[in-house]
Amino acid sequence: MQPAELILPATDSITLVLQQGVLYLTLNRPVSRNAMTAAMLDEIIDAFDAIRGRLDVRAVVIRGAGGHFCAGADLKSLATAPKSAGDDPIAALNRRFGTMLQQVEAASQVVVVVCEGSVLGGGFGLVCVSDIAIAHSAARFGLPETTRGLPPAQIAPFVASRVGLSQARRLCLTGAQFDGAEALRLGLVHLVADDAAALDAMLDETLDAVLRCAPQANAITKSILMNVEAAELATRLDAAALQFSQCARGSEAAEGITAFMQKRRASWVVSAQGSASS
Amino acid sequence: MQPAELILPATDSITLVLQQGVLYLTLNRPVSRNAMTAAMLDEIIDAFDAIRGRLDVRAVVIRGAGGHFCAGADLKSLATAPKSAGDDPIAALNRRFGTMLQQVEAASQVVVVVCEGSVLGGGFGLVCVSDIAIAHSAARFGLPETTRGLPPAQIAPFVASRVGLSQARRLCLTGAQFDGAEALRLGLVHLVADDAAALDAMLDETLDAVLRCAPQANAITKSILMNVEAAELATRLDAAALQFSQCARGSEAAEGITAFMQKRRASWVVSAQGSASS
Amino acid sequence: MQPAELILPATDSITLVLQQGVLYLTLNRPVSRNAMTAAMLDEIIDAFDAIRGRLDVRAVVIRGAGGHFCAGADLKSLATAPKSAGDDPIAALNRRFGTMLQQVEAASQVVVVVCEGSVLGGGFGLVCVSDIAIAHSAARFGLPETTRGLPPAQIAPFVASRVGLSQARRLCLTGAQFDGAEALRLGLVHLVADDAAALDAMLDETLDAVLRCAPQANAITKSILMNVEAAELATRLDAAALQFSQCARGSEAAEGITAFMQKRRASWVVSAQGSASS
Repeated sequence: MQPAELILPATDSITLVLQQGVLYLTLNRPVSRNAMTAAMLDEIIDAFDAIRGRLDVRAVVIRGAGGHFCAGADLKSLATAPKSAGDDPIAALNRRFGTMLQQVEAASQVVVVVCEGSVLGGGFGLVCVSDIAIAHSAARFGLPETTRGLPPAQIAPFVASRVGLSQARRLCLTGAQFDGAEALRLGLVHLVADDAAALDAMLDETLDAVLRCAPQANAITKSILMNVEAAELATRLDAAALQFSQCARGSEAAEGITAFMQKRRASWVVSAQGSASS
Repeated sequence: MQPAELILPATDSITLVLQQGVLYLTLNRPVSRNAMTAAMLDEIIDAFDAIRGRLDVRAVVIRGAGGHFCAGADLKSLATAPKSAGDDPIAALNRRFGTMLQQVEAASQVVVVVCEGSVLGGGFGLVCVSDIAIAHSAARFGLPETTRGLPPAQIAPFVASRVGLSQARRLCLTGAQFDGAEALRLGLVHLVADDAAALDAMLDETLDAVLRCAPQANAITKSILMNVEAAELATRLDAAALQFSQCARGSEAAEGITAFMQKRRASWVVSAQGSASS
Repeated sequence: MQPAELILPATDSITLVLQQGVLYLTLNRPVSRNAMTAAMLDEIIDAFDAIRGRLDVRAVVIRGAGGHFCAGADLKSLATAPKSAGDDPIAALNRRFGTMLQQVEAASQVVVVVCEGSVLGGGFGLVCVSDIAIAHSAARFGLPETTRGLPPAQIAPFVASRVGLSQARRLCLTGAQFDGAEALRLGLVHLVADDAAALDAMLDETLDAVLRCAPQANAITKSILMNVEAAELATRLDAAALQFSQCARGSEAAEGITAFMQKRRASWVVSAQGSASS
């Protein structure tokens, strides 16, 4: 059965391009280093809504236009909080950052972020919910919120879950700024490149590795991983055994094991080569 | 409103000095490498009681007198367990170590530890509950308890939470001893210096970074971080949004954002320069 | 009181040798790089059943025969799923992998794994439940399941618990393969050696360190550590204080503290020197 045609939402603050099963989501407010507005949050949430549960979209690449990933929240958004139905429009807008991070983290697709230039505040948070983070060694990471009298309220829990509570405490309570090498050492990112060409090549290699994995097997694996704190271990292992059996009886395993025996590529393997820079 | 005058408790095993909003707490039993007695535990607990909830104390620096941080529990304390009301005075004394660690971890202030010389047992535990740990590269870290027939009973959970269960298992079950570089690699400490002067400079820089952050914003951020395992993520994000809003409407954010726009220092920024060695 | 004589189970896919209080468990299907069959799972489970709660067995060393640790699940086992009483024999067999990992993780002994050659899938999982993992720098680690259309269903939770959710997501969703140095950097293993002789020496040193620790104190320490997520911290600290007191009043602490004061070895200290290669 063919999946229903994928209809991507109309967007203004971000761009969306689908290619070879990879959705390229670009934060596109380069004049303000892609600082996040309420509109941008909504558009990111809508984009992930559109691909929910779709196995034909296998990965999402999030990147910033113009050499920066994201400078954090747009401070003007704070001043012009939306006329929310809630009692507290500032709290409502702030909570929307958390909703966006939860939405990205809940994606069944493999989410890859490419970190260049400023990776601050909400942009830092977005890195924390990715499956794979690639960084330019000269990127600048940081959580400057408390130096401005504000807590990184929606971001802090995701930072703690990404780099551990110990490093999160230091980073959040000192407003520390650091580069790609330190981000790698902290486990915030997984791979670092020293120039733009190497960064693009690293992205292509990463996507090629993802695209060698079977779509449904990867989606199920991610769901098993993301539930690590949700229930008792034995309960989760019971459920995972049934999911394994479902995969083992399905068409992917038949093809995957046969291809492995025959030393050939499985039918789902495609290459992302060159698509990153297109 | 001015906060009520801060009255520090009288102490014997530790010294307390307040300077520029930083409380310097020095373990002061150098003849026994600052090994912890029941009296020292009580005095540490009292000191943190005295500063509970006070925004005018922004950081606490814990350090040992005489070139050692802390050699662990004073074994003589074990032999002369206090006449506790409880059924089991040894258990009661042991539990007091855990109470001290819980007390330090619950501080709303940024807790910085400076690790030199011996950092063993209970001293190791104290490092595990700090927000920022700085070490001399020649410091000796270790958990020798089981080599003496005792479990690191109150310390082990804090070790696991600090360096992860995997490293905690190895460290506790082998009585491993290691230096500052390895402590950095394990994530037990965050910064390492190769000599005493560099260590003091590093402490001053760290405190300066902390003192650039707004007092209330930092206290709220720490409370958000320390609750990471306390409730469901969505519940925590809801609560954090209200705390963010409270900060955004408060005087710190008004000053912090204005100072940021005007490229000047915020009113709360002070320097700790030179106070470490005073 | 002498413990009852230890009766090791008869085995076919693994070998069991007990020496100086160390049980050497060797995965012994070298023709298939020690790929795990249903029978091998059962034998590992039986071996750990036999030593449950025994303080006279102080450590278990798991290693593979023929230069490989373990190439993962034997794919033929999948095809010939056992005539299980359950509704779904594939799920039942898959779940057995999880049961084996839970069994090894629950051991009161210190579990050491020695990683050489292929360390894939289920073999990778076994590393994740060890207390101490030693690797040859040329060992190959990886989770290739999803490239074959299958999720690493029983293994994924243990990977996340060992290297953190962030690295687990990347490793599982890309089928990444990596060497011993990277395994050390990720915290999957604790020590790396560059050749076979250094690996054996490193194992002996590790065992010697374990054997300097008192048997009961180590078993209690491990139980305290493994319960880190089981109950509220205060409850766990209360229980640990009673366990500490029990140890402090026992014969191990009397001997351990006396030996420490007299600067001599405690009575339980033995050396594993040379036993690894025997």
